[in-house]
Amino acid sequence: MVAMNIGVLGTGVVGRTLATRLVELGHVVALGTRDVANESAQAWLGLVGTARGARVATFADAAAHGALVINATSGGASIGALTAAGERNLAGKVLVDVANPLDFSHGMPPSLSIVNTDSLGEQIQRTFPTARVVKTLNLVNADVMAHPAKLPEETTMFVAGDDVEAKATAADLLRAFGWRSILDLGGIQAARGLEMYLPLWLQMMAAQNTVTFNIRVVRA
Amino acid sequence: MVAMNIGVLGTGVVGRTLATRLVELGHVVALGTRDVANESAQAWLGLVGTARGARVATFADAAAHGALVINATSGGASIGALTAAGERNLAGKVLVDVANPLDFSHGMPPSLSIVNTDSLGEQIQRTFPTARVVKTLNLVNADVMAHPAKLPEETTMFVAGDDVEAKATAADLLRAFGWRSILDLGGIQAARGLEMYLPLWLQMMAAQNTVTFNIRVVRA
Repeated sequence: MVAMNIGVLGTGVVGRTLATRLVELGHVVALGTRDVANESAQAWLGLVGTARGARVATFADAAAHGALVINATSGGASIGALTAAGERNLAGKVLVDVANPLDFSHGMPPSLSIVNTDSLGEQIQRTFPTARVVKTLNLVNADVMAHPAKLPEETTMFVAGDDVEAKATAADLLRAFGWRSILDLGGIQAARGLEMYLPLWLQMMAAQNTVTFNIRVVRA
Repeated sequence: MVAMNIGVLGTGVVGRTLATRLVELGHVVALGTRDVANESAQAWLGLVGTARGARVATFADAAAHGALVINATSGGASIGALTAAGERNLAGKVLVDVANPLDFSHGMPPSLSIVNTDSLGEQIQRTFPTARVVKTLNLVNADVMAHPAKLPEETTMFVAGDDVEAKATAADLLRAFGWRSILDLGGIQAARGLEMYLPLWLQMMAAQNTVTFNIRVVRA
């Protein structure tokens, strides 16, 4: 994959892990945050260094920088972060959405704040109609997202989105991470199923006492 | 597994497929229906024959017959069917719930009529507190439920329920069907995740154009 300018929105473990992996792969990464003084973001920059053009930026600056933008903010904060990023900075761009609309306000286990007849992926596509949203990676832990080969067998990653070229670009990125088995589920409406899988993921995590797992689709 | 009396509630493809498999495995099966003249049920009986004690019965008769009862009715009809079966006929019994609360009333794709902060499995356990409910098998097509070895690789089946012995009995049944990898997700609340997986299953079915598939959990 040719080196790209990529904006990663969100400085949590998902954003930092993906941003680090992208720098390793040769991309020029701006890690987007509400506040560039954010300690996690600055610690990340200290770790990866600035030699390959990596930097910490505002949401708007990171989105403007990216030819491809990744939404790695928490689900409840995603619309706000993307609004801060600005629709004009997202227009025409591949917007990879890896967030989950988890709602911890009623305690554990979390429920989903958007569910069943809608999804965060669809909501993002509706709110930013000129962005080319691709839902993917939200089904696994950050480390598995970036390093799928850490699992002892090949597992499956899914993509969903209305723009076929955008899905092809996202799939290129997934292959660069090490994903080999990528299943296209169709339009962005399929984000519903990808997000509604989260409760099962959380139960598997608890039952197996690990976050380092994924599923492999096996068909006859 | 020792031969048991088993009541299978529901004469759709899931109920008939499971009932046939159970007869093959030597169990004495009563297939429960609202109306014993039901054509599907009588056709099933014609197929399996009465030599091993198989019969068509009312919901109440089938539940009374079973040392173990399987709810294979459609999700929207399950509470009604189990009410017709009668709480006293379910008391103390392992009640294997394989149903999904799919709601097709708003067109395709279906949504779930119970979701996110509740599940059909939990609703059944609350409504019939003396039954020992185990949620399982709802994640796969009827043929895969009964014949998991048809898939080219071992895949994972999940169980959830509040009664540990009931889950062990259900797991024995699963192993008799050919399931080898069985993951216990804990109490019946985990039915939420098992049911909320259905939208992803439906999307995978459409994307792969087959119902003969399942997932294998791969962990580091």
